[in-house]
Amino acid sequence: MTRTPLALTMGDPAGIGGELTLRAWLGLRGQGVPFVALDDPGRLRALAATLGLRVPVAEAASCAAAVALFPDALPVLPVLLAVPPQPGHPDPANARAVVASIERAAMLAMSGEAAGVVTNPINKAALYEAGFAYPGHTEFLAVLTGAAGQQIMMLASPHLRVVPVTVHASLRASIAMLSTGMIVAAARTTERALRLDFGIATPRLAVAGLNPHAGEQGALGDEETTIIGPAIAALRGDGIHVSGPWPPDTMFTPAARKRYDVAICMYHDQALIPLKTLDMDHGVNVTLGLPIVRTSPDHGTAYDIAGKGLADPASLRAAIALAASLTCHTLK
Amino acid sequence: MTRTPLALTMGDPAGIGGELTLRAWLGLRGQGVPFVALDDPGRLRALAATLGLRVPVAEAASCAAAVALFPDALPVLPVLLAVPPQPGHPDPANARAVVASIERAAMLAMSGEAAGVVTNPINKAALYEAGFAYPGHTEFLAVLTGAAGQQIMMLASPHLRVVPVTVHASLRASIAMLSTGMIVAAARTTERALRLDFGIATPRLAVAGLNPHAGEQGALGDEETTIIGPAIAALRGDGIHVSGPWPPDTMFTPAARKRYDVAICMYHDQALIPLKTLDMDHGVNVTLGLPIVRTSPDHGTAYDIAGKGLADPASLRAAIALAASLTCHTLK
Repeated sequence: MTRTPLALTMGDPAGIGGELTLRAWLGLRGQGVPFVALDDPGRLRALAATLGLRVPVAEAASCAAAVALFPDALPVLPVLLAVPPQPGHPDPANARAVVASIERAAMLAMSGEAAGVVTNPINKAALYEAGFAYPGHTEFLAVLTGAAGQQIMMLASPHLRVVPVTVHASLRASIAMLSTGMIVAAARTTERALRLDFGIATPRLAVAGLNPHAGEQGALGDEETTIIGPAIAALRGDGIHVSGPWPPDTMFTPAARKRYDVAICMYHDQALIPLKTLDMDHGVNVTLGLPIVRTSPDHGTAYDIAGKGLADPASLRAAIALAASLTCHTLK
Repeated sequence: MTRTPLALTMGDPAGIGGELTLRAWLGLRGQGVPFVALDDPGRLRALAATLGLRVPVAEAASCAAAVALFPDALPVLPVLLAVPPQPGHPDPANARAVVASIERAAMLAMSGEAAGVVTNPINKAALYEAGFAYPGHTEFLAVLTGAAGQQIMMLASPHLRVVPVTVHASLRASIAMLSTGMIVAAARTTERALRLDFGIATPRLAVAGLNPHAGEQGALGDEETTIIGPAIAALRGDGIHVSGPWPPDTMFTPAARKRYDVAICMYHDQALIPLKTLDMDHGVNVTLGLPIVRTSPDHGTAYDIAGKGLADPASLRAAIALAASLTCHTLK
């Protein structure tokens, strides 16, 4: 095994990240997708013992060493916690280690020692208390990697890829902020990533309408004419293969999904409802527009089930597998 | 076969209704779900000949006679067209017959001669030109049947039932008009129909949030607190089994769908995206709040494929089958 490993962050140690990491190793150890955890080896060993998981945890001196260890043990580049984590109860004393894990993963990816970064879920509120000053992972990684331009969230599953143009705002505010420029920027970043990172020669973009029936010629809203239509025209001017605006309710049927590689969606739930309705377990969050590959599972810290052995590693496994496939195509 | 038949309207004779009616008979003739078409026997015979469909068309003198005919021929209570229909080209000269078909179906259901009404798709613009003064089928049927109170559109498939509280308005206008009273009224009508017409002893209603993550405690919008929460409280006060507001993106997963009988949705696409993503072909539109059973297929006149033998009768067949099952429970 000579591949460059992926760097997997710790996430919130009071959440389900640790057990997902252990289980992901069990699931992927034989599949040629090595990863190295930026985590506290002692806490992972204790967690494996508590959950009865037969996961040998080995401290690695480097990413190259981690690859050699991977078939036989979960390799860990140590990032030590200040206090032992309590499942479900985040401790600001450990915030520094959570942040350090992200920083080291980003540095390894930037230097080429790691092939990309996969992030376990964090609790932003707990980090804010400890002085973390970024809205989330994405903004922090953009600063750490010196990313130029805009980052875009893509959600990918085996059935569907979606990009919400507006994301974490109320539905009312999402409509108010939607602009031709935002749609064009998101679509351009998406098209470039599908071409360079996903290896799709001519990505086909389908742009959703905002309103029922895509506005029905203005009877049910005019954003399709005033905002979305001009964005599609501009993208066509770039030579991008783009269609729409499509009626939102019929663009995610099996037949419709065959006609595009990614759906550019106008708001969070327009993108996330079809994705999660089709596949709750295998959705992966991909950050486009960073100079490194970065994916993450499509769920949170799940404090309610942390430490109980109930967490399903399907999304993290899918995030690792997708990151590994992207690595092959990324131009740095 | 002694069941009361369903009354199936003509719909726009330039659309796909006629061929759907012929194919629905072929699919349902052996299944004990008799229906009678309110249509022009001559045009149905000509259409069957054009499409090469072996469907004997028999004029029935009454609903009772139609039931006796049904196993061997498509029974028709004649409603004559003014001019032969041209597929894809609606003719205002036939608008009177389209409307008469709906009127007769409603009267048969009101008198008990028919067990309910299933409507083929109409083209409202073509009817408006001929003086039709109702926004659509539902409002017309409400007047014809003297319905008290509000009618509600429910979409039902084998996977999911959804009720959009706001329907045919822009997304912006839908948010602006959303009120506690509208949600309560829609949910009450839905609960009553599921109990009386669908035979569900204690219907479980799941109410969606409006915003991403159901507003995330106000960080992403406050309608969950100011509008939706009070509606849920009022419904609980009625003794209705209701939950929510749920994050819209995770409430349609397979696991989540097991926990409710109907999703009360805040806008058109929140309801229609998951329904059509899961099942494009078998969605049925059910009108709740009428004194008669009424269902319709979840598609339009499809002028682009009319008369070509390409129309899929799955949704009309599902609409007829669902109407037949509802009939058993309806209290008049």
